[in-house]
Amino acid sequence: MKSILVRGAHIITQNDARQVLKGDILIENGRIAAIGHVRGSADETIDAQGDIIIPGLVNAHTHIAMTVMKGMADDLPFNDFLEKSFAIDAKRTNEDILAGARLGCLEMIRGGTTTFVDMYYAEDIIAKATVESGLRGVLCWAVLDREYTTQKGVPLENCQRFFSEHQGNEMIIPGIGLQGVYVCSKETFLGSKELADRTGMLMHFHLSETRKEVYDHKKRYQRRPADWLQEIGFLGENCLAAHAAWLTINEINDLARSGCSIATCPVSNMKLATGGVAPVPEMMKAGVNIAIGTDGSTTNNSLDMLGEMKTLALLQKSNRWDPTVVSAQQALDFATLGGARALGLEKEIGSIEVGKRADLVIIEGRSANIWPLRKESLVAGIVYCANAGNVKSVICSGKPVMLERKVLSLNEEQVLEESNKAMSGLLG
Amino acid sequence: MKSILVRGAHIITQNDARQVLKGDILIENGRIAAIGHVRGSADETIDAQGDIIIPGLVNAHTHIAMTVMKGMADDLPFNDFLEKSFAIDAKRTNEDILAGARLGCLEMIRGGTTTFVDMYYAEDIIAKATVESGLRGVLCWAVLDREYTTQKGVPLENCQRFFSEHQGNEMIIPGIGLQGVYVCSKETFLGSKELADRTGMLMHFHLSETRKEVYDHKKRYQRRPADWLQEIGFLGENCLAAHAAWLTINEINDLARSGCSIATCPVSNMKLATGGVAPVPEMMKAGVNIAIGTDGSTTNNSLDMLGEMKTLALLQKSNRWDPTVVSAQQALDFATLGGARALGLEKEIGSIEVGKRADLVIIEGRSANIWPLRKESLVAGIVYCANAGNVKSVICSGKPVMLERKVLSLNEEQVLEESNKAMSGLLG
Repeated sequence: MKSILVRGAHIITQNDARQVLKGDILIENGRIAAIGHVRGSADETIDAQGDIIIPGLVNAHTHIAMTVMKGMADDLPFNDFLEKSFAIDAKRTNEDILAGARLGCLEMIRGGTTTFVDMYYAEDIIAKATVESGLRGVLCWAVLDREYTTQKGVPLENCQRFFSEHQGNEMIIPGIGLQGVYVCSKETFLGSKELADRTGMLMHFHLSETRKEVYDHKKRYQRRPADWLQEIGFLGENCLAAHAAWLTINEINDLARSGCSIATCPVSNMKLATGGVAPVPEMMKAGVNIAIGTDGSTTNNSLDMLGEMKTLALLQKSNRWDPTVVSAQQALDFATLGGARALGLEKEIGSIEVGKRADLVIIEGRSANIWPLRKESLVAGIVYCANAGNVKSVICSGKPVMLERKVLSLNEEQVLEESNKAMSGLLG
Repeated sequence: MKSILVRGAHIITQNDARQVLKGDILIENGRIAAIGHVRGSADETIDAQGDIIIPGLVNAHTHIAMTVMKGMADDLPFNDFLEKSFAIDAKRTNEDILAGARLGCLEMIRGGTTTFVDMYYAEDIIAKATVESGLRGVLCWAVLDREYTTQKGVPLENCQRFFSEHQGNEMIIPGIGLQGVYVCSKETFLGSKELADRTGMLMHFHLSETRKEVYDHKKRYQRRPADWLQEIGFLGENCLAAHAAWLTINEINDLARSGCSIATCPVSNMKLATGGVAPVPEMMKAGVNIAIGTDGSTTNNSLDMLGEMKTLALLQKSNRWDPTVVSAQQALDFATLGGARALGLEKEIGSIEVGKRADLVIIEGRSANIWPLRKESLVAGIVYCANAGNVKSVICSGKPVMLERKVLSLNEEQVLEESNKAMSGLLG
């Protein structure tokens, strides 16, 4: 594997001291070998003079196969949205899933995401697109009660098969994707937990996204979802709950005690107007690990983690009438370190430190919308000013997947053509 | 003046029927001469095959001289923010203002804004940058009671002088910038109105941005700000109120009856956590004309109208728990037609129609984050998916100011260097 020397950038390390350095990064065998003033040379040199480097962003909740469906169900009442998007999704072929996943990967590369958590059935197809793209995917096979799914066979067995096929692959990390308490029984949750404990897989699930979901569950079980999941012995450190919006303090404490991480999805929640704003300040106070997800393109309609960080900070400040709630630094922490921790990958990714995987995003420093650059406000520049168009180059696990805005891993023209066909087919 | 033929784009016309067409646009003498299948040729041809064209965006409230100050006062309590940003702003030289204004224009070009409404003192300096940039500026000279300003001379006289110097200029449109009820007496408001009525100038003012501002005024005058402005006979069709967040239904009706437009600034309000979410649904219902502004870079920290449209729609949906509130089409209407109407320029700009000024933004259609393109969701693609990096070319009043991402009107390198110096000076 080629060694790479990235020269002369402002480096937002996200190390414990949150240092911002000016210097070089040496990559060897896919990992960061040195940071600072690096003497000597490497097989490949990337000139990043004047640019800003951040750790690869972690999109902690999405459904990338649905990327071709963006714009198909906007501005609708929630039930109409569900009906319309489910109806379209039900028509999907394996080719459509592959095309959607490739398009999603392409968009994520261009936006500086290097690791993503996907929830869908047919993760084997999504894995193919992920491998091609060079991104790291935590691919969580949809598990739900059999009466609610069109999956052939038993979902948990399908998930287990997917695990067997990809076990030990650094870039394709199988996970269990539990759709939510509304379609998953106690047995399904505990069966998943048994599989997760045995295999080390992550359990990723939707939690308390809508008010209805919470009160329907309470009516049925006399418990709110997170309380119930704690009570049945499901919650643990191998859990990542998406949305986590409609929570009580008691439930937040359940999450904190159990070590469950959450992926807040501000744009999706706002666009669908699900009402509950994720209680991020209380979760931070309780010690819940927080990550950020875009959710799928039917709801967002974007996989843009730079935009998501800004919206998260804005929403939390606005909701609490307090501009000190969720600073730029905290938003970046959630999108990097928080994501890494949620996946149990905190020793591998999430910051720019010697020994970690080289997941690096090079952002064009000389951009009018970020300029002028100051060390003290570089993080704010990334969170409040930068957009996906500022991302120049992306390196994932030491391999450049985009250089100077040219995507190397995927054939961009082909991805666009195929996804266009998939979109037409779904609407035909 | 050169004729230009823009070939083969998807055109979001924003005409009365909100048509989306596929075809060409012929520009002659700075105006749109034909739309559709245009035979023949022009002095210059721009190939926009597969791209999306929208009317130039109108940023209806900003303070562009402060663009160099982005990142200097983030995530602070409101009073600390004010204190810090005023302290820095007070140190500003004419060179700093020019450098900041140029940087702001550069960012706006790259983000597809062709018309902006600025409020600041020293608009003569900002006019210089605006002329260089090729953008259309409605430049509102700051008017406030003498005890509150460091302006030399009488603000209203300075404003009048600025008007005399630029009267009749198509691209530099002088306006009156009233800072707000907290620093402007009844006499200042009515003196401005007299000048506005006599000259045709727009009156642009901050209105009810913060709760404190409203209740301080009420304590002093027993009236809320908009009620008071109506009562003293100030409000009229030549008024554009920025923020307009903390309003009662009665005040909304005041605005509607008077014909006063508003510029909502969602990102700024959220980031400063001013609490009040502009009552956009009620304003729409009452018939208030709505535009969108970014506010200055100390609060946003961006002049990105594409992002602002998305945030506006998200905030309004989220705030009302109703995803049908402010659709993508409505957000785009506010940023184009609403802005044009607010400035009394609805016959000149705001849509792509024969006879109007050719203010056109060419957005790269083959962008993963917007793709796939469908006529029915093209507007949603612009509002929910596009970012400033997708903007390829910008034409303002028939003159290309950016082509294929190369800014033609300003020397980008020089603007960055100068603004960097200005920033260092302010912090020194």
